[in-house]
Amino acid sequence: MTNLAAAADHRRDEPRTGVLLLRCPDAPGIVAAVAGFIAERGGNIVDAQQHTDRSSNQFFQRLVIELDDLDVAPEDLPSAFAPVADALDMTVEFHRTDRPLRVAILASRQEHCLIDLLHRYRAGELPMDPVLVASNHPEAGELTSWFDVPFHHVPIGAEGRDAQEAHLEELLVEADTELVVLARYMQVLSPGFCDRWAGRCINIHHSFLPAFAGSDPYRQAHARGVKVIGATAHYVTAELDAGPIIAQDVGRVTHRDTVEDFVRRGRELEVTVLASAVAAHLEHRIIVAGDRTIVFS
Amino acid sequence: MTNLAAAADHRRDEPRTGVLLLRCPDAPGIVAAVAGFIAERGGNIVDAQQHTDRSSNQFFQRLVIELDDLDVAPEDLPSAFAPVADALDMTVEFHRTDRPLRVAILASRQEHCLIDLLHRYRAGELPMDPVLVASNHPEAGELTSWFDVPFHHVPIGAEGRDAQEAHLEELLVEADTELVVLARYMQVLSPGFCDRWAGRCINIHHSFLPAFAGSDPYRQAHARGVKVIGATAHYVTAELDAGPIIAQDVGRVTHRDTVEDFVRRGRELEVTVLASAVAAHLEHRIIVAGDRTIVFS
Amino acid sequence: MTNLAAAADHRRDEPRTGVLLLRCPDAPGIVAAVAGFIAERGGNIVDAQQHTDRSSNQFFQRLVIELDDLDVAPEDLPSAFAPVADALDMTVEFHRTDRPLRVAILASRQEHCLIDLLHRYRAGELPMDPVLVASNHPEAGELTSWFDVPFHHVPIGAEGRDAQEAHLEELLVEADTELVVLARYMQVLSPGFCDRWAGRCINIHHSFLPAFAGSDPYRQAHARGVKVIGATAHYVTAELDAGPIIAQDVGRVTHRDTVEDFVRRGRELEVTVLASAVAAHLEHRIIVAGDRTIVFS
Amino acid sequence: MTNLAAAADHRRDEPRTGVLLLRCPDAPGIVAAVAGFIAERGGNIVDAQQHTDRSSNQFFQRLVIELDDLDVAPEDLPSAFAPVADALDMTVEFHRTDRPLRVAILASRQEHCLIDLLHRYRAGELPMDPVLVASNHPEAGELTSWFDVPFHHVPIGAEGRDAQEAHLEELLVEADTELVVLARYMQVLSPGFCDRWAGRCINIHHSFLPAFAGSDPYRQAHARGVKVIGATAHYVTAELDAGPIIAQDVGRVTHRDTVEDFVRRGRELEVTVLASAVAAHLEHRIIVAGDRTIVFS
Repeated sequence: MTNLAAAADHRRDEPRTGVLLLRCPDAPGIVAAVAGFIAERGGNIVDAQQHTDRSSNQFFQRLVIELDDLDVAPEDLPSAFAPVADALDMTVEFHRTDRPLRVAILASRQEHCLIDLLHRYRAGELPMDPVLVASNHPEAGELTSWFDVPFHHVPIGAEGRDAQEAHLEELLVEADTELVVLARYMQVLSPGFCDRWAGRCINIHHSFLPAFAGSDPYRQAHARGVKVIGATAHYVTAELDAGPIIAQDVGRVTHRDTVEDFVRRGRELEVTVLASAVAAHLEHRIIVAGDRTIVFS
Repeated sequence: MTNLAAAADHRRDEPRTGVLLLRCPDAPGIVAAVAGFIAERGGNIVDAQQHTDRSSNQFFQRLVIELDDLDVAPEDLPSAFAPVADALDMTVEFHRTDRPLRVAILASRQEHCLIDLLHRYRAGELPMDPVLVASNHPEAGELTSWFDVPFHHVPIGAEGRDAQEAHLEELLVEADTELVVLARYMQVLSPGFCDRWAGRCINIHHSFLPAFAGSDPYRQAHARGVKVIGATAHYVTAELDAGPIIAQDVGRVTHRDTVEDFVRRGRELEVTVLASAVAAHLEHRIIVAGDRTIVFS
Repeated sequence: MTNLAAAADHRRDEPRTGVLLLRCPDAPGIVAAVAGFIAERGGNIVDAQQHTDRSSNQFFQRLVIELDDLDVAPEDLPSAFAPVADALDMTVEFHRTDRPLRVAILASRQEHCLIDLLHRYRAGELPMDPVLVASNHPEAGELTSWFDVPFHHVPIGAEGRDAQEAHLEELLVEADTELVVLARYMQVLSPGFCDRWAGRCINIHHSFLPAFAGSDPYRQAHARGVKVIGATAHYVTAELDAGPIIAQDVGRVTHRDTVEDFVRRGRELEVTVLASAVAAHLEHRIIVAGDRTIVFS
Repeated sequence: MTNLAAAADHRRDEPRTGVLLLRCPDAPGIVAAVAGFIAERGGNIVDAQQHTDRSSNQFFQRLVIELDDLDVAPEDLPSAFAPVADALDMTVEFHRTDRPLRVAILASRQEHCLIDLLHRYRAGELPMDPVLVASNHPEAGELTSWFDVPFHHVPIGAEGRDAQEAHLEELLVEADTELVVLARYMQVLSPGFCDRWAGRCINIHHSFLPAFAGSDPYRQAHARGVKVIGATAHYVTAELDAGPIIAQDVGRVTHRDTVEDFVRRGRELEVTVLASAVAAHLEHRIIVAGDRTIVFS
């Protein structure tokens, strides 16, 4: 874990920062009001990105601020900011960047996304605290252990799928999980589960949604004779493969490619698209707005 | 038209060639039988590409052969080849490359695809003989005339859509049209028309099909919150936007992009995808196999 | 010109806006100081993007503000803002978005980039006022006239290249040109010219710079056996093909592609890359920082 | 190693095949002569791809043939074919696809390419026999051992770089290495080594060559302000980073990306480009022609 330690060391030298994710009805003066508050309290705005959605007239902003010179403790920032937020009818999320999110990864037989996430974590690329990996198959256990991450084999047993999901969710809750990543976890989750983890559960689907939702998308794509295949990372919702899209990418295929070639080529897309979506979530760069996402860069 | 003339001159120096598009059940010895026939008759194989579809056990081949040293006249080649083809249960198409296809372009209010095709033709990029442009709107007339291509304004009048389509088809037939290109022609064509022009009518749809078939795909795509948009060129069939796909491409979009931005970005995709599909057809590089296409390079 | 008129009409309904491009040494409180000034004067910030370059410790910001409720006239905004700017050691550029830049396009024998820019202008995509097209060859005249843009044939005559460039520059100055676009203009410009038009002259080079600078890049690329080709739009500087890069794109090629295929494929890249760079300049989204550009989205 | 075993099982069901890579001066009748020979000997051509380079007048062909019905043993095929080859002045390479190449991977501190190759091997994606991994750093040892591949730590010691290279090469020779993959191996190899392994040693360079050859290409690229970064896999030659290119890919970057971001983004490109080049070599799809490669699909 040398690399990760080095990355952490590197980060320690930098000033501590926090991220504010803001959303409110658009109006003149928002930027000034927020920036004025930060300046008044001694903070420095390291990065600011904003977006105004004209159709819904909503304003969105992501601010990265230095915490060290603030005249309030980081944990008190939200309440100190509340009067400004209230006046603007603003929804506020605050995250400290020195505290990585607690992440659980659910996997199945296909290991490529799991492997990639764990290697990126080890290389210091993903600011996360992997609290557990769970799978309905035992194969990934050896690999996961090699990364010193706890592994749970949670098969679908005689008690059925509901019992298995309940067991899984118990593990997630016990580990104080903040983000669930479905790394080619091939089981459909119940609407209740999806609702409880709304905005905190990312899935990778192996097609460019909304094309080829459901099972076996590469086979569907091959039958349709497409010339591009894709992968889509999205937040999970009760409706299958219909949640807000975070990231997508595509690759070209030709008539020479079989379904198996689609699968192999697709793995590269799945891996990079999922990693990109998970990184955006971990770095607090995403705001969900209805069926769409705002992903700041 | 200097550029085109220069291109034609250039081609004149090269040996005359013909293209054979072959399809038959796969079996040992096909390549040898075909190549042997060509060699025996004095022909030289300039290029050969083949594909075997394992699932249907079909063999496909595209051959480019020099015609000048053949001991049969080009027009007699198919009949000379018939015994070989019959023995292999082979379907044969033969095209001379010194005779460009007669192409009709149907357009509507959006002119970008029409403009692009005409400029590529003028630059010597597309080996076609543009016999007419027709539109249900008059705007494209001035531009088309500038390229010395006959223009027909065929509005949907009091007699309705069927009469308009009949009028259009009459024009196509009178002009001995070999390929119809729907360059953002926004009218749905009747099943009868689609059947009569099967494999000879290319449409550009402004989404990565099968996602967002039907009308207003950019609006659909924006509502779904996709992160990539696309364009698809396909042969027209009676089922809307469901014909065999020839070419697709995609571009990235972000939350900053409005529907209008999608439209603008999409234009570049539509233009290059349609041109690529039309070029493949004009160069006799496509074989339609059921719902899919084999597009040789 | 119906489309452009419609686009202009559409814009007229929207509130008038202005763009501020700001640059200064990074320090706490910049965002608040600027936003506070705008708010105080009654302005509304429609869009704000910022960037801090850590290596040079420079802060960059692009603000779009509504002008109508400001308590200063747009032309007086820079002087009203001067005290804030001075205190922060800030360089300020201000542009009104209702006044398109006056653009001159220099072309040569290859017309594809010229054609594309004029069509985009006509379609309302590029907010520019095309004051002239000049070429050392006469061919583009007919086309340019069709778009109602003045055309000047400025050949390299007996007096040589310096005299020709001087004549060209005279035309540019007389037309109050604000941006010069080299749309595959194949002549090397003198260092003096490059200096006088620094930051106001965009060239398209047909390679992914810095690879294959200089002449005949597609031939160089083919000889090197590359698997991707590219195009680069950059500001012109005295050193050939070494100015700050604004936009780049690439496309795949294979061993089947000849130099001529590279040229044909490259045209599509050149056209989209140049249009993208010109749009960024016209929309005041670029700040040049040394040898690099910041291109806001 | 379950997956790989499954993949091997799967292959066992398929007919045994061999690959012929042919090259000769272009002439009429080559295709017929070769196909005729195969048919005569009872072979079936499963796939055939060809390419004629007009500038050098060379013909190249890759044939995949079924071996089981041949009336010669696979090992005798080259000598049986010799008369045909001699008559056409043809260079012939023959490979059996049921015998994976023996591959040595040289790595250094950066492990991402090594990890990716080993995982693809394990997943059955790369038909290779990994005989050893060697590195001038010890870190990769633990990981390599996990894949049951022999690891050698070959540091540059007191005897210097020549001695270290000699030691490395001894290991390669002892292991009957057929392909050397430099998976971000950061040492420059001697001209003698490069000559001895010509066409059998693949390097991944982290730029789109020929831009940014030599050391620290991401830093060079950042300083130049490029908007795309890339990776290039090529055969190693005595001239640094100048060997025949096998595969390249690029990704977009913006002014927001630091050198570190380039490095991170670049890793994904390096991994996929190297894997694609290694797969092409292992599947005998590459013919080197001077400074260029023909990579059949």
